[in-house]
Amino acid sequence: MTNKIPPEHPRAESLRTREMLIEGFREGIVTLAGLIAHGRGEAFDYLLGEKTTKPALKATEAAAAAMLNAEKGIISVNGNTAALAAKHIAELAKISKARIEVNLFYRSLEREEAIKKLLIEAGAEKVLGAGKDASARIPELSSERRRVDPHGILIADVVLVPLEDGDRTEALVKMGKKIIAIDLNPLSRTAQKATITIVDNVVRAIPKLMETAEKLKKESADKREKILQSFDNKKNLSESIAFTEKRLAKIAKVGEFLVIGEEQDGL
Amino acid sequence: MTNKIPPEHPRAESLRTREMLIEGFREGIVTLAGLIAHGRGEAFDYLLGEKTTKPALKATEAAAAAMLNAEKGIISVNGNTAALAAKHIAELAKISKARIEVNLFYRSLEREEAIKKLLIEAGAEKVLGAGKDASARIPELSSERRRVDPHGILIADVVLVPLEDGDRTEALVKMGKKIIAIDLNPLSRTAQKATITIVDNVVRAIPKLMETAEKLKKESADKREKILQSFDNKKNLSESIAFTEKRLAKIAKVGEFLVIGEEQDGL
Repeated sequence: MTNKIPPEHPRAESLRTREMLIEGFREGIVTLAGLIAHGRGEAFDYLLGEKTTKPALKATEAAAAAMLNAEKGIISVNGNTAALAAKHIAELAKISKARIEVNLFYRSLEREEAIKKLLIEAGAEKVLGAGKDASARIPELSSERRRVDPHGILIADVVLVPLEDGDRTEALVKMGKKIIAIDLNPLSRTAQKATITIVDNVVRAIPKLMETAEKLKKESADKREKILQSFDNKKNLSESIAFTEKRLAKIAKVGEFLVIGEEQDGL
Repeated sequence: MTNKIPPEHPRAESLRTREMLIEGFREGIVTLAGLIAHGRGEAFDYLLGEKTTKPALKATEAAAAAMLNAEKGIISVNGNTAALAAKHIAELAKISKARIEVNLFYRSLEREEAIKKLLIEAGAEKVLGAGKDASARIPELSSERRRVDPHGILIADVVLVPLEDGDRTEALVKMGKKIIAIDLNPLSRTAQKATITIVDNVVRAIPKLMETAEKLKKESADKREKILQSFDNKKNLSESIAFTEKRLAKIAKVGEFLVIGEEQDGL
């Protein structure tokens, strides 16, 4: 995986993103399971055409409105998100006045501290949730996965959860929070349970979210509330699924084929 | 990833397969890129419903016929295949009188020897292609990826390549060989370039191939040739793509959702 990727390679961006994950693994930020999860994301992204779709843009607008109108907004960061988007996460936190909390599926103090350090170096002012800071518990989740920061996710009204797991999304929604998920799989439980789901690659979605928040900041809170109220997540997800379905139907007809990750499969 | 998987878990099989890959990584058989590739496979398998489809069964029949009618059949084995199906590969080799050759994208003597050892322990009589044995070259491929065994892939007429990369598939086809691919992504270059593509999970496909070969062994070589001649790979691939497309269309309509890998995402 250390081969140089030629910039003219048709899938250079996807391959670079993959290198970032591998690098994150070597730095103790990404887990083995995180690498496999990234592969799933690659497949779904490929089916989308590796582009931000119209339904994703609509969800991004609703998400930006929710973050700007939040009283206590939080961006929950796990290993893969940190490896792929630390700098953009730090910027989004500033624009939206959200706080950042490290929240892992497989907790380990080393990994929490490594992610916190990466985020601080990327420009984050403060990072919640590492080590003893995660002293609160969220209901209905087992073991270490329920641990959250009492100054962060526990008291937040809006939580952005890129690449989250379904159980935790559901538990947070049950606590009355607005949950914004970024998930390439529109069929996942996370996608289906969240308040707003952006079906897009975090590498594209977070910069787009920053840009949209900058724009909506100039609007009134009322106008943002209207955007939020008019958003229908189930409908939006159906549009995302239909997008992929239509793309497959077209491909099946023309016999076009997609080269997915084959150049550097390393099997 | 070392959590015990409860047997009643709806996705226990997929999670167990994932554990096998992780174990293979720890044993130096699977690469980091192999883990990501497995994730892509998980996503495509999920879209198929994690079941062997009718088009896959048809391709399996053609593949078994090709292997039985081969003069010099070879099963090419890489890290992921060895980790997931070593025992079945050894059995399939016996049934079909094929030889086994280790063939890696990222060659290293340690990995080749580890895979060879695993296959021998799983019951393989002889394993070609490790270390100096891979002294021949196939044309049109760069660097280490072109190395093959002069007693194996180089002189084979039929090569089974589970989880292969597209470049190598194409190069082998150009050498006049019949290539049987096992690839969950019907859109990949491997899938599109192979002579016969089984769109299925290797964990299901190889046992099914064994079973079908046992059955077709009782038939005449002529009958097997007829099965082979009547198989149309492009048509079969279109049927596989259409299968997934129809499944997505149904899901988009009913709002059903699929839980893919979320229980143990480890992000």
